[in-house]
Amino acid sequence: MNQYWSRRIREAVPYTPGEQPKNRKFIKLNTNECPYPPSPRAAEAIRGAAGGGLRLYPDPECLDLRTAIACREGLDVSQVFCGNGSDEILAFAFQAFFDPDREVVFPSITYSFYPVYANFFGLKYREVPMNPNFSVPDDLLCGENGGVVLANPNAPTGIAVGLGVVERVLAANPNVVVIVDEAYIDFGADSAIGLIGRYPNLLVVQTSSKSRALAGLRVGWAMGSPGLIDGLRCVRDSINSYTVDRLAQAGAAAAVRDEDYFQAIRRRVIKTREKAEEALKEIGFTVIPSQTNFLFCSHPGRSGKALLDGLRERGILVRWWNRPDIRDWLRISIGTDEEMDALIQALCEMVS
Amino acid sequence: MNQYWSRRIREAVPYTPGEQPKNRKFIKLNTNECPYPPSPRAAEAIRGAAGGGLRLYPDPECLDLRTAIACREGLDVSQVFCGNGSDEILAFAFQAFFDPDREVVFPSITYSFYPVYANFFGLKYREVPMNPNFSVPDDLLCGENGGVVLANPNAPTGIAVGLGVVERVLAANPNVVVIVDEAYIDFGADSAIGLIGRYPNLLVVQTSSKSRALAGLRVGWAMGSPGLIDGLRCVRDSINSYTVDRLAQAGAAAAVRDEDYFQAIRRRVIKTREKAEEALKEIGFTVIPSQTNFLFCSHPGRSGKALLDGLRERGILVRWWNRPDIRDWLRISIGTDEEMDALIQALCEMVS
Repeated sequence: MNQYWSRRIREAVPYTPGEQPKNRKFIKLNTNECPYPPSPRAAEAIRGAAGGGLRLYPDPECLDLRTAIACREGLDVSQVFCGNGSDEILAFAFQAFFDPDREVVFPSITYSFYPVYANFFGLKYREVPMNPNFSVPDDLLCGENGGVVLANPNAPTGIAVGLGVVERVLAANPNVVVIVDEAYIDFGADSAIGLIGRYPNLLVVQTSSKSRALAGLRVGWAMGSPGLIDGLRCVRDSINSYTVDRLAQAGAAAAVRDEDYFQAIRRRVIKTREKAEEALKEIGFTVIPSQTNFLFCSHPGRSGKALLDGLRERGILVRWWNRPDIRDWLRISIGTDEEMDALIQALCEMVS
Repeated sequence: MNQYWSRRIREAVPYTPGEQPKNRKFIKLNTNECPYPPSPRAAEAIRGAAGGGLRLYPDPECLDLRTAIACREGLDVSQVFCGNGSDEILAFAFQAFFDPDREVVFPSITYSFYPVYANFFGLKYREVPMNPNFSVPDDLLCGENGGVVLANPNAPTGIAVGLGVVERVLAANPNVVVIVDEAYIDFGADSAIGLIGRYPNLLVVQTSSKSRALAGLRVGWAMGSPGLIDGLRCVRDSINSYTVDRLAQAGAAAAVRDEDYFQAIRRRVIKTREKAEEALKEIGFTVIPSQTNFLFCSHPGRSGKALLDGLRERGILVRWWNRPDIRDWLRISIGTDEEMDALIQALCEMVS
């Protein structure tokens, strides 16, 4: 706190990202990064863009990248918006589509940035309580509200809902925007992109950070009706005209166009996840079936904090939240097969 | 406009950046980019960072880049903040330090993003009228207010004030934050960085876009007391934890460390500016003495719009604003000597 701070930041409760260790070498299973490098074509495109052209501002409209995304998804370019990671796009969307006097709703256990945005932008919100098995009672997303945010698959639980549920929420809320945050969609769930044509209130948000292994590049995109895309553009142009730099645009476009590489690493992560899920169950863990690149799990004999600390001592970082409803649960990102073997071995020592 | 738009964006008046032409080849003197490529060391650092490491999130604290800046400027790392261009940092600062009930003041002719920020974040503001010679009546920045924003040198006029004036404004406003926007400082004016130790209300904002030829990379930085830096961090962590990607951090740090290259292109731009200023005067232009990488000029016999259009027809882009007080003025970025020769020749045809 400081005498010069505005009331807005005096009242803010910022998001805490997962640790990015600088010195000690950890097995890093705490921020859902991809264990494999990005497409070699992305690296090549970046190296090609790393010359004299950097003296010029980037294309504020990210036209080439949006074309690559629109092409892949069967959309028009006017239905695609690109930003500095899906976090920036979510922040823009909260400002573009939600008003202070009506409650935004989202599940009580979900991406913990949503309440941060709502607080920071002065919006009311209502957290829908989860069922005991962490499924979302979607009826509660269909009542009177000022907007809906639904992570599908959800984080940190890893549970996906089918498109029938997404469509029911969209149809029940025709006058407000429904944001479907598909950061983890490529690891096993069905995207709502196909519903965009029928629901002008649908905004689908995706990222290059997970399934395209480009967390370090900061590129996300939103897809929806042109009116919603224009709303995001209006926020951007009121804050920072150029949020995606030249290298990020070039690298992300090349990654989106490299479908074979994308499919290969996506499948590899899913295979490792299935193996790790079985192994965790064998040593007594409860594991929520996951459609993501992480597993949400707990052990009847150990607290979440004890597991977190024990793993850290053994050189393995995972994610844990200090909140009563999930205090005994860990979120473990899917690493390489070797990293997951090391994880299982460490947990085995700790619980046996 | 769209039924799903929030009140906030229905009322927004976004900033319009200068044109980034896509097809026709123009001589581009409209967005104050550097005519020379960035440091080869920046390009090399980017190519080195364009590998497997991109799968990992960037350092949210930009420690290496902040260390490079702190080192060069004789500051502590805790006095430096990095962001996605100085525009993002200015947007953060408006949210971090200004409250809706007190007027932010800035000159009436200055960077046109300031009123955009104020409007978008629901802040009152007062535009201080300029003297007829475009100097800023700094007395008017010293009265009762909720914060001050002073571009030094100013844009689009190109006029710098001395540190005595900056210090007078700082001393007269001890209870509010004074943002000194030094986007163009390296082309001839004195930076206020040396005042940071004595004025906890001073925030100096700089960019890699102009004097370091990295407009395409989107990196800016703010320098000030650690309390102000923490305030910017609080805004960032309420919106988007990682705003500067790995490539941008690596490239900007290398550019900041390449002092020789920086000095060489900075001097070259100044030399070309001095030559162009003389040549414009010779063909009858009024030219405001500039401490920046652009010239603000008018011609008694031609309207600003006529000059803008005539230059465009001749393949040269410059910047013009459709507002009564500067309607007959052009802002012309300093290009290479050859580009400026072409500009002068084109203008010569048009005014003779």
